[in-house]
Parts: sequence; structure tokens; C-alpha cells
Amino acid sequence: MCELLGMECNVPTDIVFSFHALSLRGGLKGPHSDGWGLALYERHAARVFLEPRAAAHSELARYVRENPIKTLLAIAHVRRKTRGAVSLENTHPFMRELWGRHFVFAHNGTVRRVRHLPTGRFHPIGRTDSEHAFCALLHVLQRDHKSYPRDREKLWRAIARAAGEIGQHGTFNFLLADGEHLYARCATRLHYLIRKAPFRTATLADDDLTVDFSSLTTPRDRVAVVATVPLTRDEPWTTGVPGELWVFRKGRLRATLKST
Amino acid sequence: MCELLGMECNVPTDIVFSFHALSLRGGLKGPHSDGWGLALYERHAARVFLEPRAAAHSELARYVRENPIKTLLAIAHVRRKTRGAVSLENTHPFMRELWGRHFVFAHNGTVRRVRHLPTGRFHPIGRTDSEHAFCALLHVLQRDHKSYPRDREKLWRAIARAAGEIGQHGTFNFLLADGEHLYARCATRLHYLIRKAPFRTATLADDDLTVDFSSLTTPRDRVAVVATVPLTRDEPWTTGVPGELWVFRKGRLRATLKST
Repeated sequence: MCELLGMECNVPTDIVFSFHALSLRGGLKGPHSDGWGLALYERHAARVFLEPRAAAHSELARYVRENPIKTLLAIAHVRRKTRGAVSLENTHPFMRELWGRHFVFAHNGTVRRVRHLPTGRFHPIGRTDSEHAFCALLHVLQRDHKSYPRDREKLWRAIARAAGEIGQHGTFNFLLADGEHLYARCATRLHYLIRKAPFRTATLADDDLTVDFSSLTTPRDRVAVVATVPLTRDEPWTTGVPGELWVFRKGRLRATLKST
Repeated sequence: MCELLGMECNVPTDIVFSFHALSLRGGLKGPHSDGWGLALYERHAARVFLEPRAAAHSELARYVRENPIKTLLAIAHVRRKTRGAVSLENTHPFMRELWGRHFVFAHNGTVRRVRHLPTGRFHPIGRTDSEHAFCALLHVLQRDHKSYPRDREKLWRAIARAAGEIGQHGTFNFLLADGEHLYARCATRLHYLIRKAPFRTATLADDDLTVDFSSLTTPRDRVAVVATVPLTRDEPWTTGVPGELWVFRKGRLRATLKST
């Protein structure tokens, strides 16, 4: 199993505070020491930092924490392997181009017999069920839509439907990003939080680190954070309902869709 | 224009010495200050470090130099923009998945009217002629071969042919990698070097830095290095012939193909 972290905002924001919390679980406060990754978008392109080793002991993860990159949309993952060896090709998040955008995906859970699902033009590089499921999801989207749908709600429904079908084969908690939205599907465990005015302090769940967001933000800032397990101990996290997909845009929860 | 750097070896090797030389040209000893990127393979998957700013002044480039990652295959690029703004999506090298492998590409030159070339299922994310040309190249490969060709020479010829066609539209010096080979096409300017026993010292062309490779290698090591302009002043670089494609594998020049 693994832990997921997503962030989607209406102003460029750095993910350092939350990523620090996730990194602690990557081999220090948690058992997720088989790799970590962080994807950060700039418009429709993402850059991805990946390492097939524990985030808590990673110099690169430390670099990322000490040199914050602001972004509107990010996905991070710490891995505890169930399927697939510890290697770069099996490290989340995975990325593919579709419709002239990078799509980024990270998964928590195991999808059994996933190799029965067609992936069309998207070929897994590694051996994880997760990457195969991602390819299967993109295949359905690409098969049914020639380009990025202008009708955004149509896209959201298509993702919810395709994810629901794949989710029938196992535990399919995931985060997906398309350069514009953050999609978060709950199969068993997922939480979200919207940070907005009035901003307050927040304290990490696994550490004594506290941040006063009121000193770092303006009143119109909105930051949606999604995590497998709440990262802070003093903020109002919302618990996901199994079989539902959240869609975030500009720091708002834009839709909650059935995804079964 | 830009500068290219590729490395392909028979034992995992770090690219720090050559990347340091390239970085100097990214805004300090050269004018290529509009971005840099470095792709490093592990089997068929690559991780890519990208930054839309001068490598010479980049903390991330410094991190990469100070924390060497060993690899059999790498491509780096420093950018001086001709087409497309300074942004992440326009930063080389570009990467796509084809046949279950990452393909990585970096370009030097300008391909005019490239947008007439079909790209099939591969859609550019940014606005460079380079990324479009890469998509067009992959499209031809994917159109003509359902999977990674078992007959490797067939693949090499297909790449040489497709590159030659695209090269008719402009200046198409490039490096391409498929997780197994490094392909280097010369349109106007490209050089290569094979480091092998007996190893000696080498001194950077733009700096007084000297490395004694004999202390870092074993007698069977072979490292092919390709660069737009020779990176060292005291090694026997071979100058590329316009319209030719080099194919490197396990630190050897395996083929020189006509690519016009």
C-alpha cells in the first residue's frame, strides 16, 4: 500500500509543508520506503521528481523541500510495494501525454487481474498493477474522445465511469491530474481539506511542525489538499466515501461523482 | 540554437563531468540560458530533470552535479530559444512512451514549417518545432511497427529514414534514446568520443577542470559521449558528417547510417 498527496490551488503555492509530512511517512514515521515521486505542473506540462528509495532519507526529497517550486497542481506519492520490484519504472506518479497535455496518476491499493484490461496505445513500462490501470483508464478516455472535451462535466463523468469499472477489480484509490483538474477517487481511504480565508495555523499529524498560513496567503487564496490520511491534526479534513470521485478546480471542490 | 549532450555506456556511469561542461555553456560560458534538461535511464524508463532557466545558475543543476546518478544512457540539453517561449513545456529533452519504453529526444536547430508534418497519436504539449518534430518521428515509427522491432538494424534504418525526411525541412541535429540505444543525427554540427582503456586524463574545453578517468574506471569500461561542440580540449573527438546518423550501444558506435 502507499500514501497519496494532491494539491490544487487558485494561486501558485508550494507544496513543501504537505510534502514534508508525506516524506516522513516515506520510511521514518511510516513504512512507505520503496520509492517516492512528486509531479508539479506548469500549465499543461508536468515535471516529475522520482526516486526508487525512501523519501525520508532522500537527498533529492530534501532538495525539493528546501527549494520550493510554486504550482497550481501537484501529485505526490510514497510507495510501499505490493506488486512490482523497487525500481524507477515502478515508481509513482506515472505520466503520459493525452490530447496535448500531461496526465499524471498515482494509486493506492491493488487492482487484481488488471492485465485483462485493454490499454490500447498506452503501454505500461514497468510491472505494477497501478501503471496498467492508469493506461487502461487513459485508453477509455482516448477511445471515446478525440480531444480534450470542451464540456468539462462530460470529461469528469467519463473519468468517474472508467474509474468505477476498473475499481470493480480491486482497491482503486487514486489521484489523477490533467493540467487543469485534480481528480481523487476514494475506494477505501481518502481525505480532503480546503485551506481558505480566514487562514489559521496548522500542525502536522506526525511531527511538531506548525505553519501559520495567514502569514503566507492573501484572502482570496484557495488550496485544496487531498491525502490518504490527514496530514495535520488541527484542520477539518473531510473523509471520502468509497466509490466517489472528487473533482477539484481552482481550489474548490467542483463535483462529487459516483464512480462505481 | 542549443547544445546537446548524450552518453551511452556498457557500465553505469555518472555524467557529472560532461554535464558540468554543458552547464557552463548554459548561461555562463555560452548563451544557452533559456532552460536545461537531463534525462537519465534506468532500464526502459527515464527520469527527467527540467528547468526553464539557466543551468549555470540553477540550484537543481547543482544538485544533479553534486549527487551523481549512475546510468547507462543519458541525454542533456541547454536551450537558447528560437521558437517557443521560456517555459517548462518548451524545455528539452522531451519524453514519450512508445512500445512500453520511454523515448527521449533533444534537438539543436530549427525545422521550418514543421507543423505540416502529421504526428498521429503524439500531440505536442508546448510550442517548439523540436517537440513537433519528435512527435512526427515517433508517429512514423509507431505507424510502421506494432512493437519494438526484434531486428534492431531495421529499427535503426527506420529512424535514419524518418529523421532524414524531417531533416529536409530544416536543421535537424538531434539526440534520441529508446532505453537501449543512443541515436545521434548530424545536420550541421555534432561530435562524438569513445572513452575506453587505456583511460587518461581529460580537461574541459571551457574550464580548467581535469579528471583522471583511469582512476574511475575498469579496463573493460566503454563510454560514448556525443556533444554539439567538443566538451574537452585534449581528447580525440570525431566530427559528424551532415546527413548521417550514429547509433551507439554498450559504449560502441554500432552503425553510421545515411539519414537524408
